[in-house]
Amino acid sequence: MTGSAPGGAPAARQPVPHLLGAPHHDGSEVYVDGGAPSLGDSVPVRVRVPAGSSTTGVYLRVLKDGEPGYVRAGLDRKDGAEEWYVAEVDVHNPVTRYRAVLHDAGGYRWLTGTGLHDRDVTDDADFRLSVHGGGPAWARDSVVYQIFPDRFARSGAERAVPAWALPAGWDEPVIGDFKDPRTPLQFYGGDLGGIEQRLDYLQDLGIRTVYLTPIFPGESNHRYNATSFEHVDPLLGGDDALASLSSAVHARGMHLIGDFTTNHTGDTHEWFRTAVADPSAVERGYYYWRDQEPGYVGWYDVPTLPKLNYSGSGLMDRMVLSEESVTARWMRAPYSLDGWRIDVANMTGRYRADDFARDVARAMRATMGRIKPDSVLIAEHNFDAASDLVGDGWQGTMNYAGFMRPVWSWLADAASPVPTFLGMPNPIPRRSGAATAATMREVLAGVSWPVALSCWNSLETHDTPRLSAVTGDPAVSLVGIALLFTYPGTPMMFAGLEIGAGGLSGEYGRIPMPWHRPEAFATETFRAVRDLVHLRNGVRALREGGLRWAAIHDDALVFLRETNDERILVVLARAPWPGSVLPSSLLADGATPENLYGGGDLRVTAAGLEIAGDGPGAQVWRLA
Amino acid sequence: MTGSAPGGAPAARQPVPHLLGAPHHDGSEVYVDGGAPSLGDSVPVRVRVPAGSSTTGVYLRVLKDGEPGYVRAGLDRKDGAEEWYVAEVDVHNPVTRYRAVLHDAGGYRWLTGTGLHDRDVTDDADFRLSVHGGGPAWARDSVVYQIFPDRFARSGAERAVPAWALPAGWDEPVIGDFKDPRTPLQFYGGDLGGIEQRLDYLQDLGIRTVYLTPIFPGESNHRYNATSFEHVDPLLGGDDALASLSSAVHARGMHLIGDFTTNHTGDTHEWFRTAVADPSAVERGYYYWRDQEPGYVGWYDVPTLPKLNYSGSGLMDRMVLSEESVTARWMRAPYSLDGWRIDVANMTGRYRADDFARDVARAMRATMGRIKPDSVLIAEHNFDAASDLVGDGWQGTMNYAGFMRPVWSWLADAASPVPTFLGMPNPIPRRSGAATAATMREVLAGVSWPVALSCWNSLETHDTPRLSAVTGDPAVSLVGIALLFTYPGTPMMFAGLEIGAGGLSGEYGRIPMPWHRPEAFATETFRAVRDLVHLRNGVRALREGGLRWAAIHDDALVFLRETNDERILVVLARAPWPGSVLPSSLLADGATPENLYGGGDLRVTAAGLEIAGDGPGAQVWRLA
Repeated sequence: MTGSAPGGAPAARQPVPHLLGAPHHDGSEVYVDGGAPSLGDSVPVRVRVPAGSSTTGVYLRVLKDGEPGYVRAGLDRKDGAEEWYVAEVDVHNPVTRYRAVLHDAGGYRWLTGTGLHDRDVTDDADFRLSVHGGGPAWARDSVVYQIFPDRFARSGAERAVPAWALPAGWDEPVIGDFKDPRTPLQFYGGDLGGIEQRLDYLQDLGIRTVYLTPIFPGESNHRYNATSFEHVDPLLGGDDALASLSSAVHARGMHLIGDFTTNHTGDTHEWFRTAVADPSAVERGYYYWRDQEPGYVGWYDVPTLPKLNYSGSGLMDRMVLSEESVTARWMRAPYSLDGWRIDVANMTGRYRADDFARDVARAMRATMGRIKPDSVLIAEHNFDAASDLVGDGWQGTMNYAGFMRPVWSWLADAASPVPTFLGMPNPIPRRSGAATAATMREVLAGVSWPVALSCWNSLETHDTPRLSAVTGDPAVSLVGIALLFTYPGTPMMFAGLEIGAGGLSGEYGRIPMPWHRPEAFATETFRAVRDLVHLRNGVRALREGGLRWAAIHDDALVFLRETNDERILVVLARAPWPGSVLPSSLLADGATPENLYGGGDLRVTAAGLEIAGDGPGAQVWRLA
Repeated sequence: MTGSAPGGAPAARQPVPHLLGAPHHDGSEVYVDGGAPSLGDSVPVRVRVPAGSSTTGVYLRVLKDGEPGYVRAGLDRKDGAEEWYVAEVDVHNPVTRYRAVLHDAGGYRWLTGTGLHDRDVTDDADFRLSVHGGGPAWARDSVVYQIFPDRFARSGAERAVPAWALPAGWDEPVIGDFKDPRTPLQFYGGDLGGIEQRLDYLQDLGIRTVYLTPIFPGESNHRYNATSFEHVDPLLGGDDALASLSSAVHARGMHLIGDFTTNHTGDTHEWFRTAVADPSAVERGYYYWRDQEPGYVGWYDVPTLPKLNYSGSGLMDRMVLSEESVTARWMRAPYSLDGWRIDVANMTGRYRADDFARDVARAMRATMGRIKPDSVLIAEHNFDAASDLVGDGWQGTMNYAGFMRPVWSWLADAASPVPTFLGMPNPIPRRSGAATAATMREVLAGVSWPVALSCWNSLETHDTPRLSAVTGDPAVSLVGIALLFTYPGTPMMFAGLEIGAGGLSGEYGRIPMPWHRPEAFATETFRAVRDLVHLRNGVRALREGGLRWAAIHDDALVFLRETNDERILVVLARAPWPGSVLPSSLLADGATPENLYGGGDLRVTAAGLEIAGDGPGAQVWRLA
C-alpha cells in the first residue's frame, strides 16, 4: 500500500509508470476481424508490438486437432509508436486456441490472455477463436436490469394472498435473516403488471434488457422452488400478464429474459408430486432417489428442492429439447422471451458420476436457436466458469469470479468488511489494484472474446449483499459503478443499484422499490448510473472495444477500450493516488481529450497525457 | 543471473534463502492417504502450516457437483516447527477438486498446486482427488527404458532385406536429415531377439520396464506407418520373437510396453488398401476422405499417414473396444504386453468438428482393464496435457511440457542452443532456476498426484535431440540426469542416455548401441545413470514422496521428497551458486545426513543444514 507522509499530508510522489510498452493482443476487432468465424475459415490475427522493442520476430502457436503448430506473423504496418504483425489462422476446429510467440535475442516470450511470459506456461490463458461466438449483439450491447418480481412494483390488481405467504406492506422492513423461516415467505405482491407500468422509468434509465427472476409459481417470494413450468404464477398476473409485458417491452425495442431452474424443482412441483405418488410414472425418472431420508436427492441436501436427473431422455426432452419443452414454449409468441438465465447452471446435470451439464447446455442452446436464433443463454456460475463456457451451450455467465468478487475486494471497506462472499468462510479482504486487475485479467483470459463480452458483470445481485454494504461509502460505490459500465462484458444491474440500496445479504437486499419517495431517485448515485448507462449505450468502444491496462496502482485502475475507430480512457481511483502520464501517441492527431464522464481535466503536456491523482472518483475520456 | 566478481573469482555471496516457511499441500501420502478413493469415500486431507505463521484458520474449498463448498480443517497435531490441519473431504464426484483457504488477519490466501496466492485465482491448479488413480504401482515404480528396435541390438538371425530398405552396417553413421528421403529407410536390422539377448544388461542397469517403439510392420525403420496390426514385423522376428521376448522379460520380473499408432496408419496398411480399392468396404469408414488431393486426410497432411476416423463404431471396436481389438489381442498370452504407449494421443480422434479423443482413451483403458487390470496406458502429448489427463483414459503422458522442456531450458548451452524443441520456431533459451521450477510446478499442478507419478519424464526421446546436444557439457548433462531420477514421475530413458549419446535431432539420435565398444559404457555418465536408477529403485521417497521446493536460484534447484517415513534432500546445480541453509528441523532427531549420491558434505551447524554452493553437480541426502 502506498503510504502518506508523516503528518497526514500526501507525500510528493512519482507518477505511476504506464504499462503501454508491452506487446498486446485480445480477441477484439482491432486484433481479430469481427464476427464468429466458420469452420474452415482463415482469419487474420494481429499482434501489437511497441516500436523499438527487442522483438525480432512474431509467430502464432495455433492448435489444430489437438497439436500445436507455428505460423509466422509478417509485419503488417508500422508507425512511430507501434508495429503490427499479422498471421492467417486456420479455424480448423470449432474452438481454435492460439498464443503469440515473441522472439528476441535472449530467447522467446509467450503472449497469452494473461500477458507476456518469459517462461513456458500452461495453456489455460491461450486465446480462442470460436465458431460459436457469444450471445447476440443486442444482448452484449444492452445494460441488463434484474427484477425480483415480488419487490419491484405492484400493478394495483387485487389478488387473494395464498396460504403460505406472509403479506407485507410495501414500506415494511425486509426480513432477510436466512435462518428466519419467514424470510422466503414475506410477500410484498409486486407483479408483472407493475413492471409494465414502470417501463418508462427503465427506458429513461437507458435499460435495453429486462431480466426477471422466476415467474413460474413457487411457494416462496423468490419462486426458485417451482411448482409448475406450465403457467406464469397467477400472483404475478398469470400467462396474460407475461404476454402483455413482453409485448410492451418489445414495442420499445427492449428485450426480455426469463430465469429457469434447470437444476431442481420445488418439492411441491407437479412432476415431483406425481413421481412420489406413482413410482411407475415417467416423472419418477426425472429425479434422483435414494434410501436415505428424505428418499431423494435435494439441491445442497435441501429437501424442498429435489434435484433433476437428466440421465434419461424424458426430462431432457421436456425441459430443453423438444418443441414443447419449457425452454421452447415460453420463447414463442405471445410470451416471446428473448433468452434464459439458468439458475445453478454449474450444478445442472451433475450428480456423483453423472455429468450431463454440457449436454443440457448444448441441447438448450440448439432448441433456442431453432425458435429464435438471436436469443441469449446465460449461466449462473459463482466461480471459475471457463471449462463450461466453450460457447456451444451457455453463451456467457454471471461473472462473479471475474468481476464482482475482484471489484468487491478492491473497494471493500477494510474497517467493516462484508461478512462473506457467496458462502465463503472468510470476510472479503481489501486487495490492491494489482491483485484486482490480475484476477480480472486471468478470468477474462479463460474464455473467447465474444463470450467475455456476453458475460454479465454485476456489483450486486439478489443473492449477494448490496454494493453499498461492501464499500460503506457512496463515493467509493460510484467508482465500482463506473467500472461496471466501462469494463468488457454486459453490465447487469439489480434493481435498486441506481438508488444505492442497502442490504447485508442477498435476502436483505431484495428491497421494494420506493416509487412513492421520489427523493430516493434524486441523488448523485441515480444521476451517475443514468449517465453511465447512456454513456455505454452511446459509445461503441465501451461495449465492444478491446482492453489494455494502462496503469495500475494500489488505489487506481486505468485502462483503454479500443475499437478500430475509437479509443476511450477510463480512470478509476478508490482513493487519492500519484497519477500517471500516458504517451501522447494515444491521442488522435490534432485531437484534444474529450471528457465523457467525471468532469476531470486530462492535461496534454510535453511529458504526455497527465492523469491527475484524484480519488475516490472515476473519469472517462475520448482520446480518438 | 547472479554474476561473478571482477577478475573471475566468485563474489562472497549470501546463502539463498530457503522456501520452507510456506504452508504446503500436495496429493502425496503425507497429505492424503494412499490409494485411489472410491466414489462416496470420505478422505482426510492434511495441510502443513509452519508454526508461528499468521494463519488463524484453515478451510478446504471442495467442489461437489460443480459447486464449491467450504470445510473447516481442524488442528490435527503440532510440533515445534509445524502445525498440521486436517479436514474430511467427500469424494462425491469421480474427480473432486479442492484447494485450501488460509485465514489471517489481513484476509485470506489460497493454497493450490502452484503455491500460495494472496489474490483470487482461477481453478486450473486446484488439487484433485480422483477415483481413477493413475497407472499401476509397478509402472510408477519402474524406470522405463525406451528401445527403437532397429537400432538396439541384432540377434544375428539372417533375414532378407525388403525392397524399401537401405541396409546399413552397425557402425555406419546415422542419416538423420529429415529432408533426406533416405532417413526413414536406413535399415540397421536390430530385432526383438537382439533385445532379448541384452536383458542382463538392462537388469544390471536397474531397468524394470522396457518400452518398444512400434513393432508392427511398416515400410520404414521407425514403423510408425503400420502396414498391419495383425502381426509383429517379420524383420523383427515376427510374433514368436515377441512371445519369446515377453516371456523372458516377465521371467525377470520386468514389464513390457508396446507403442500403438491410434491416430493413423501407413498408406500401405491393409485396411487403407482395402478402403481405396473398394469404396463399399467397411474399412472405408475408418478414414477421412475428401475431394482435395490426395483424396483423404493425412496426419499433418502427410499422404503416407492416413488419419483414422472414429466416428463410426467399426474402427473403435477393431482398434480399442472389442475382445479381438488390436489393444486387447497383444495384451493376451503369449504376447502379454503390460501396457501401451499411444502415439500422437493428443490428436487421436480429433479432426475438425470431431473429437473422439476421450472416447478412444476411455474405451481403450476399459478394454485394458478387462484383460489385465494392472496394465498401464500412457499418451504421447508434447504440450499442456492437463485437459486430457483426467485419469479415466490415459493414465499419464510423456511429460514434455512439465519436465523435458523446462529442464532443457535450464540446462541449455547458451552459446550454442539446440535449434528447436519439437517444431518450435525458436531456439531453446537458457532460463533461470526460478522460471524452470515455476513451469514444472504449474504443469504438475494440472493433474492429480497419482497421474503426476505415472507421467513419463524424459530428457530425450527418439523424437528429440539428445541431452548431450542440448547441454554441450557432460557435467551439466549429469545434473539433468540426477533430476530425472529424483523428480516426481516415472523416469523414461531412451537407450543411449546412459552412454551420453549425441544427436542434434530425433532422427540423428537414433544411434545403434555400440555393444562392441565396451569403452563406451565405462564412463562417468554410465556409472551415474546406473547409480541413480538403483538409487530410485531403492528409495521409496524418490518414487512416491511429495515435493517441496526448498531453495531456488538461477543456477540451483533444491527440493525435498517426503513420505511418512522418509525425507530426501536433492540439490542440483548447473553452475557454482551461493549455497543455502535449511532448517535443522528437517533432520530426524539424532540423525546425521546420509549422502546417497554425489559424495558431497552437508554440514550441520547452529545455523542449520548448510548446503555448499558447488556446481555443476548433484547431491542426494537422506535426512530422515
